[in-house]
Amino acid sequence: MMMGGQGGGGGGGGSGFWGDRVVEKLMSIQGPTHELPPLDMAEKNFSGRARLYIGNLTPDTTEDQLKELVSQFGETGETFFNAEKHFAFLRMSTRAEAEKAKRGLDGQMRGGRPLKVRFAPHQAAVRVSNLGPWVTNELLHHAFSVFGDLERCLVLVDDRGRSKHEGLVEFERKNSALEAIKRCQEGCFFLTASLRPVVAELVESAEDDDGLQEKMLNKRSQEFHVEREVRSCLDPQIKGGKMGFSLGMRSRS
Amino acid sequence: MMMGGQGGGGGGGGSGFWGDRVVEKLMSIQGPTHELPPLDMAEKNFSGRARLYIGNLTPDTTEDQLKELVSQFGETGETFFNAEKHFAFLRMSTRAEAEKAKRGLDGQMRGGRPLKVRFAPHQAAVRVSNLGPWVTNELLHHAFSVFGDLERCLVLVDDRGRSKHEGLVEFERKNSALEAIKRCQEGCFFLTASLRPVVAELVESAEDDDGLQEKMLNKRSQEFHVEREVRSCLDPQIKGGKMGFSLGMRSRS
Repeated sequence: MMMGGQGGGGGGGGSGFWGDRVVEKLMSIQGPTHELPPLDMAEKNFSGRARLYIGNLTPDTTEDQLKELVSQFGETGETFFNAEKHFAFLRMSTRAEAEKAKRGLDGQMRGGRPLKVRFAPHQAAVRVSNLGPWVTNELLHHAFSVFGDLERCLVLVDDRGRSKHEGLVEFERKNSALEAIKRCQEGCFFLTASLRPVVAELVESAEDDDGLQEKMLNKRSQEFHVEREVRSCLDPQIKGGKMGFSLGMRSRS
Repeated sequence: MMMGGQGGGGGGGGSGFWGDRVVEKLMSIQGPTHELPPLDMAEKNFSGRARLYIGNLTPDTTEDQLKELVSQFGETGETFFNAEKHFAFLRMSTRAEAEKAKRGLDGQMRGGRPLKVRFAPHQAAVRVSNLGPWVTNELLHHAFSVFGDLERCLVLVDDRGRSKHEGLVEFERKNSALEAIKRCQEGCFFLTASLRPVVAELVESAEDDDGLQEKMLNKRSQEFHVEREVRSCLDPQIKGGKMGFSLGMRSRS
């Protein structure tokens, strides 16, 4: 990776310092963090959260045709098109547009095949935890910027707005995410005065709000057949038969 | 509530049936659920997820002024305006517009006071759990529609698209949510053939993706002062001092 590489074991100070780009950046932002400017939380355009996987294309589909198809839902950006394996990754301008494209195109029949459209996993998303109570979006952003440019940065809060001590850092580039994780694993990254090192790991799954859709089930399963044979049943008696309704209400006395 | 009220204890069948609107609705959708049409997952307009709380208004602010202020971010809907306590609840057309309004207006100074803008908690959101593996968005929607009209309905899935056995049902009206919870608490609501009753509870907090912002901290706290006195610190030695950098890399040998 981008480490200095002069790794002297043992002692605290010494070599490997001036060649270390990350440490240099950290030095450049040194000082108290009592006054951090508010973060712009507006969505960045063409971010990793707005990237779609589109599969099961017919062999004759061209990249231009695919882009035209998707562009009815919004502006398209960077595209990776694999003609041999009939799939593509395609970035859209906003998450909302990508959602619309997914809803509009997933399952659509083209040339006798249903299109398969999913959110692609973010390639540079890092889950951070073990954060102290004084680590905010702004401080997390401030600190993790030393590894590269950020798209989104968030400290999760509970119902009362208190820190859950974990958060999400989404970089623009995968290298930045890997660098951040490596540094947090091999050393300790302290964001405040407390000796509480950040724990960082790669997020490998895609965020998806579409839940379990009927078309995702294996309907040839015998279990599906049996479980779905009956209607939904509201049974106020518990003991009542599962195949029909029990009609009385539970006694209140 | 809207129960029949003839509640006969004990036996399975009998009274309280024909007056029970919910049971009648359940009867009307009876039969196997092998073929449920796909659900329209597009966002409903003016839903409970697009409702904002706006507080700390100046005493002379009128409802019309407030609506005009907010309308620069999108279409406004139903408004509850409390002139005496200087706050309002206001529904916007979409969640994205509400997000924009929140970002644009929260903290904005008007008449010497900072506006306070938050997402209002959904008033009719129900968290469901103990769902069987064959319960999909569609089946959950199908079943919970007997309590009233739905805005959103979702079975949560893991990274591999398998059910997490829990979900979210957002009704249009609070009464429907309360009715659903009551029925699931007082009796058993089975969605498939298995005797696995749905567990239902009200969601009382608002969803918010803005994380822990710097302005939410109590900066007069001594702890804040101490914790933020130092810069972020990357320490590859762990044992190094917390107030400065340790410069060597950990030995790989």
